[in-house]
Amino acid sequence: MKVSVLRIGHRLVRDDRVTTHAALVARAFGADRIYMTGIDESVSNTVSSVAKRWGGEFEVHVIEDWKALVRAWKKEGGRVAHLTMYGVNVDDVIEKLRKENRVLVIIGAEKVPREAYDLADYNIAIGNQPHSEIAALAIFLDRMFKGKQLKKELKGGRLKIVPAEKGKQVLESK
Amino acid sequence: MKVSVLRIGHRLVRDDRVTTHAALVARAFGADRIYMTGIDESVSNTVSSVAKRWGGEFEVHVIEDWKALVRAWKKEGGRVAHLTMYGVNVDDVIEKLRKENRVLVIIGAEKVPREAYDLADYNIAIGNQPHSEIAALAIFLDRMFKGKQLKKELKGGRLKIVPAEKGKQVLESK
Repeated sequence: MKVSVLRIGHRLVRDDRVTTHAALVARAFGADRIYMTGIDESVSNTVSSVAKRWGGEFEVHVIEDWKALVRAWKKEGGRVAHLTMYGVNVDDVIEKLRKENRVLVIIGAEKVPREAYDLADYNIAIGNQPHSEIAALAIFLDRMFKGKQLKKELKGGRLKIVPAEKGKQVLESK
Repeated sequence: MKVSVLRIGHRLVRDDRVTTHAALVARAFGADRIYMTGIDESVSNTVSSVAKRWGGEFEVHVIEDWKALVRAWKKEGGRVAHLTMYGVNVDDVIEKLRKENRVLVIIGAEKVPREAYDLADYNIAIGNQPHSEIAALAIFLDRMFKGKQLKKELKGGRLKIVPAEKGKQVLESK
């Protein structure tokens, strides 16, 4: 089962840090790529440089037309899950989603256009309280992969942490 | 078991949105309060207004000296858990933490001072890859409360969502 992420509604500068967090979460929690619209180059550079240093095969794609991407995704047999506080509880649908081959997770910024709700096969709530699309994405991926992604080793990185009770221990390959 | 959150290292303007997300996550995922240092008033106003509209009893405290807070917390018998990618795996310590009466969770911004590692009873990693303190806080609280916080009703709010497969359904008490 492969999960990709689509970030929509990014507002230049204002959302740079939040979008960077979302992309890093997508990578660390087991998604294979993120699609982003309207971002500043610094966002994709930061994410690519993290991926290079810390390993794995995460991809960053900057796209123009997110609706075209979603339609193509569905046409090829993939499923679309939109994370929204207005949707149905994640625990009620996650088992069904785990059986899919390819899932595209849509996360929005403050205002999400109506089309996202309509195009999605699933509108999924990570609780019905307002919080954060970064948190929603993390919990969704954690549920999808049953928490196993947190212990997975990502290959090919230069840096690797040795878990420690105090301070920082990092292995560096030169 | 009560969980409070301490956000340190906030940088004015640059971190406003990330800190707001962190505070909203603390509330939505079952913490009873957040302590923040050096924030702009708009951050605490946003969080307080969400809490007012959507219910519950979440508290926002703006403090000056986070180290004094942590020391007082420990002196009164509370435990301190610092979330850091350098720490030990959350799944290895969460059961122990669930048995505590009062836990203070520290989350930092980009650079966290050495004192946070030293003052903490636990340095806990939500995976050993770089991602986001917002995601780390969400996963930590989700593990602490075993996912139950997502279905909890918060009392006293004016707005309440009715989970829906498409679109938005909100109950409003006037």
